[in-house]
Amino acid sequence: MLDYQNILEEVAHEIKPYLGEGRVASYIPELANVEPNVFAMSLIDVNGNSFHVGDYQKRFSIQSISKLFTLTMAIQLIDENLWNRIGKEPSGTSFNSLVQLEYENGIPRNPFINAGALVVTDVILSQLQDAHQSVLEFIRTLAQKDDINFDFSVAKSEAQTGFRNHAMANFLKSFKNLEHEPTRVLNAYFHHCSIAMNTQELAKAGLFLANKGVQPSLPVPVLNTRQTKRINALMLTCGTYDSVGDFAYRVGLPAKSGVGGGILATLPGKFSICVWSPRLNEKGNSFAGTKALELFTTKTKLSIF
Amino acid sequence: MLDYQNILEEVAHEIKPYLGEGRVASYIPELANVEPNVFAMSLIDVNGNSFHVGDYQKRFSIQSISKLFTLTMAIQLIDENLWNRIGKEPSGTSFNSLVQLEYENGIPRNPFINAGALVVTDVILSQLQDAHQSVLEFIRTLAQKDDINFDFSVAKSEAQTGFRNHAMANFLKSFKNLEHEPTRVLNAYFHHCSIAMNTQELAKAGLFLANKGVQPSLPVPVLNTRQTKRINALMLTCGTYDSVGDFAYRVGLPAKSGVGGGILATLPGKFSICVWSPRLNEKGNSFAGTKALELFTTKTKLSIF
Amino acid sequence: MLDYQNILEEVAHEIKPYLGEGRVASYIPELANVEPNVFAMSLIDVNGNSFHVGDYQKRFSIQSISKLFTLTMAIQLIDENLWNRIGKEPSGTSFNSLVQLEYENGIPRNPFINAGALVVTDVILSQLQDAHQSVLEFIRTLAQKDDINFDFSVAKSEAQTGFRNHAMANFLKSFKNLEHEPTRVLNAYFHHCSIAMNTQELAKAGLFLANKGVQPSLPVPVLNTRQTKRINALMLTCGTYDSVGDFAYRVGLPAKSGVGGGILATLPGKFSICVWSPRLNEKGNSFAGTKALELFTTKTKLSIF
Amino acid sequence: MLDYQNILEEVAHEIKPYLGEGRVASYIPELANVEPNVFAMSLIDVNGNSFHVGDYQKRFSIQSISKLFTLTMAIQLIDENLWNRIGKEPSGTSFNSLVQLEYENGIPRNPFINAGALVVTDVILSQLQDAHQSVLEFIRTLAQKDDINFDFSVAKSEAQTGFRNHAMANFLKSFKNLEHEPTRVLNAYFHHCSIAMNTQELAKAGLFLANKGVQPSLPVPVLNTRQTKRINALMLTCGTYDSVGDFAYRVGLPAKSGVGGGILATLPGKFSICVWSPRLNEKGNSFAGTKALELFTTKTKLSIF
Repeated sequence: MLDYQNILEEVAHEIKPYLGEGRVASYIPELANVEPNVFAMSLIDVNGNSFHVGDYQKRFSIQSISKLFTLTMAIQLIDENLWNRIGKEPSGTSFNSLVQLEYENGIPRNPFINAGALVVTDVILSQLQDAHQSVLEFIRTLAQKDDINFDFSVAKSEAQTGFRNHAMANFLKSFKNLEHEPTRVLNAYFHHCSIAMNTQELAKAGLFLANKGVQPSLPVPVLNTRQTKRINALMLTCGTYDSVGDFAYRVGLPAKSGVGGGILATLPGKFSICVWSPRLNEKGNSFAGTKALELFTTKTKLSIF
Repeated sequence: MLDYQNILEEVAHEIKPYLGEGRVASYIPELANVEPNVFAMSLIDVNGNSFHVGDYQKRFSIQSISKLFTLTMAIQLIDENLWNRIGKEPSGTSFNSLVQLEYENGIPRNPFINAGALVVTDVILSQLQDAHQSVLEFIRTLAQKDDINFDFSVAKSEAQTGFRNHAMANFLKSFKNLEHEPTRVLNAYFHHCSIAMNTQELAKAGLFLANKGVQPSLPVPVLNTRQTKRINALMLTCGTYDSVGDFAYRVGLPAKSGVGGGILATLPGKFSICVWSPRLNEKGNSFAGTKALELFTTKTKLSIF
Repeated sequence: MLDYQNILEEVAHEIKPYLGEGRVASYIPELANVEPNVFAMSLIDVNGNSFHVGDYQKRFSIQSISKLFTLTMAIQLIDENLWNRIGKEPSGTSFNSLVQLEYENGIPRNPFINAGALVVTDVILSQLQDAHQSVLEFIRTLAQKDDINFDFSVAKSEAQTGFRNHAMANFLKSFKNLEHEPTRVLNAYFHHCSIAMNTQELAKAGLFLANKGVQPSLPVPVLNTRQTKRINALMLTCGTYDSVGDFAYRVGLPAKSGVGGGILATLPGKFSICVWSPRLNEKGNSFAGTKALELFTTKTKLSIF
Repeated sequence: MLDYQNILEEVAHEIKPYLGEGRVASYIPELANVEPNVFAMSLIDVNGNSFHVGDYQKRFSIQSISKLFTLTMAIQLIDENLWNRIGKEPSGTSFNSLVQLEYENGIPRNPFINAGALVVTDVILSQLQDAHQSVLEFIRTLAQKDDINFDFSVAKSEAQTGFRNHAMANFLKSFKNLEHEPTRVLNAYFHHCSIAMNTQELAKAGLFLANKGVQPSLPVPVLNTRQTKRINALMLTCGTYDSVGDFAYRVGLPAKSGVGGGILATLPGKFSICVWSPRLNEKGNSFAGTKALELFTTKTKLSIF
């Protein structure tokens, strides 16, 4: 049997030379304040064993990893009806591109690019009273941590400077693919992205994805088996911006990354794993995080392929 | 010598079968309220003679024709510096496309597409206290009519439903090609577009473009000769959305059209001419208006070519 | 343990209502001659057990499934150096699009679109004397069938009418991403595509992909474990044209499809599976074939996710 | 009255500092052999007076200026039917782009980009026995010079290395917008482009465009008045690649440029004018040639605007 703790420590050791590579996201001023060279990694297996290395108790902005949790909620709420308004294909373009939206009449390519997540947020707003709080509560429940919270300064920073997301929400609205006012959808979306968590909490919150939809701590499944497999498929084909092919090639795990430097990945049937290091590669994924996951799957010979 | 009055009447007669073709713009609800089959045409020559036919005293929403007047003001204010922020090339795409902006880093292709006019409006806002009123006063002075005014219901209608323009302004801002807040620029822009004028007033207001920059009624030139020629050149290559080639081929005059159904054209050295009919062809130019100008230049054998 | 034979028969039964949906590829005249409503499916597990249903002994044009075998050969020949000339990302556009090539300076997005396979063929031409025969021999060896052959009438039909592929090869050459003359590369490529095989032979030929690179009948591995995983990853993210996301979502297996109506898929560690039915969906994948694989993974609850 | 000779000499003097700017076209190896810093300019007015400066008797490769003569022939042969297969709009993209063709189903934007000229050549091939010789004879007749000829080494150089044009012809054929085999159309096209002429001959050959279609030396008009105006309109909106807007803005004359460094322009009713200097700006137009025409229209205050 694999000694995960030992392997994580090997990875943490071998990753050190890479911690200075890449650049911290700066398009939101608040995100640039993070200490750049930190590293953390957590693995939780389906039996509940957990393994950690580095700054695994330090919270960071989960950013686009929140798209995984909002998508899960939208699937719970309206299941396959979601696909009337969003595609399931890799974007082939940057995560914040408006080109694809224009060519495809306001249907975002997938739920993991910004445009898709805005539509997902709009769906939640239509179904629940409070899209802010309900998403936060869902994540708190999954992670079993009541003090997980929004980082209001990050949310505010993005609301004031995220003109491209404002453009996107208005563009979606012009195609009638938002039911609510763009500013209301954006406000909820920016709050979701601002949620601060550490790798331990994220690995735990994502465990149901590796466990056929069942979160061990919860009385009822989060999703059914089929829904769970399908979200894993979407993570693999759409979860890491426009480098999904390279990520699948090198790492071979379904994953969702965020510009805060976090990546949450799963090996269905085995474990969920979360890595964090803030410097990003040119595609917007954590530089050291991607490398660490590649080292991990190489060492363990574990992947979905 | 040509008998312009007689020719205008011939055109008005021959255009009748075409008045039912095309569709009135409906993306702004208020614009759809217009009587669809009307027709008007006015010609004013550089000696001050004027000729009219049809509903030439009936005002309509000038919409994008306002871009001609705001461009003129921006040239007066900062002249060639304008081209640091806007291109001079035909767009090759729809007037409200965001694709070109994304590929070209937020530099609109020309000042006559929406994105370009938003930047022009931003320039005016930076130079003058009140971009609303100053543009209105400029047009009143050119047309020598004090009761020309905004149509506030049109401006409001567009502010509430013009999500694509909201998207565009935010997109420009994300590329740092707006100095002011998107909503402020949009507010001014929507008011400019809402100005209501008739063909007589528009032909008069545009006379300086046919007269080397000199408006006969004004003590000083509006623009110098070179600036005037250059605006005419821009009208020819960029003034009629993505059908500039066909328009130059059929009509052969510099022109600026609007989705209200108006087209203002010039023959440098000779006259300015304005036509109005609300139904649009698939490119967004007045169907009967384009046809009427083609008939006019065919009958008179006058064009710039 | 799963009774694969029984499940294949269930699938074959349930698929019948779908056999009339979709359209046979007709862009190559010769391909249109196939009987449209046939169906076949073969599964071979890593222990050598094989299961079949339908017309599994009837050969068809493998078309783009050949890209899987030429890629394997190119990896054998130059391994990772291949990626200097080809990307690893899903195309996001049609398999025969030239747009992406123009925007990305002649680097095909991945080895499974036509442009990528032309570069792969060029690599083989540079390394081996005879790209025609060597590829055919490789496939014969994998399938252990000496009478597998080109369909020369299909190859000739495509050479005479495949102007888009001629355009693509010349375009690649203009970017200096072909070493050989376009016509020579095309000639080899068209022959590879024309190879005729049945589902039994294809499932057998692809078994090494499910078996860590080891083809049980051969004395040495076809690829090493890592290379094999990576080809599976590429199949998942790039193997089914611009519907990879939907295919992963519904089927959940690495796969490569061809316009002849075949799809070869793998479940790493378990089996390879091949399905054939000539009518295609609008993305160019076998309509009934995709549906059959979806039924199969639903019934068996087997997928990589 | 303007002293054209004196003005041409002023222009030739003032242009000297610019003769080292820009780069000679090198994509066809043979074109790179030209002496880079030469300059010539010829003007012929509608009364037959001619004025020259610089190396006006030195021949150069007319390249895309040939598109003006092949278009004229196609208009003579099938007139407006040409527009069933070619558009009349500025391309908005590079002269050799395949993107626009893909998005617009094989209809070239206009007859002055390469794709459009290939269709024009195909039209001539369908109407006349010998597209090579008939085009050459047409040009010889217009210029009244029997020794104008192809430069066979340039034509051969382009046939061997012009892979992008080969791609384009095959792409057009794939959309069924060529009647003849791509290689045959290309062969004729490359010969047209290779024709060598000097500025004196080109200005003379283009005089009919400034003279309502009448070439003074010929017994019958080349085109009728309307056709002539329309070709001038096309030159203005499409004649100088993707800088038509800037060219109209600065120069204000209908023009057609070639990568050999020549530009042929007209002032309808007045004169034709040809300039040559081989170094090109980044848009593919002669650097000094564009500047010289701008100086000329500034000094003379003559333009169509």
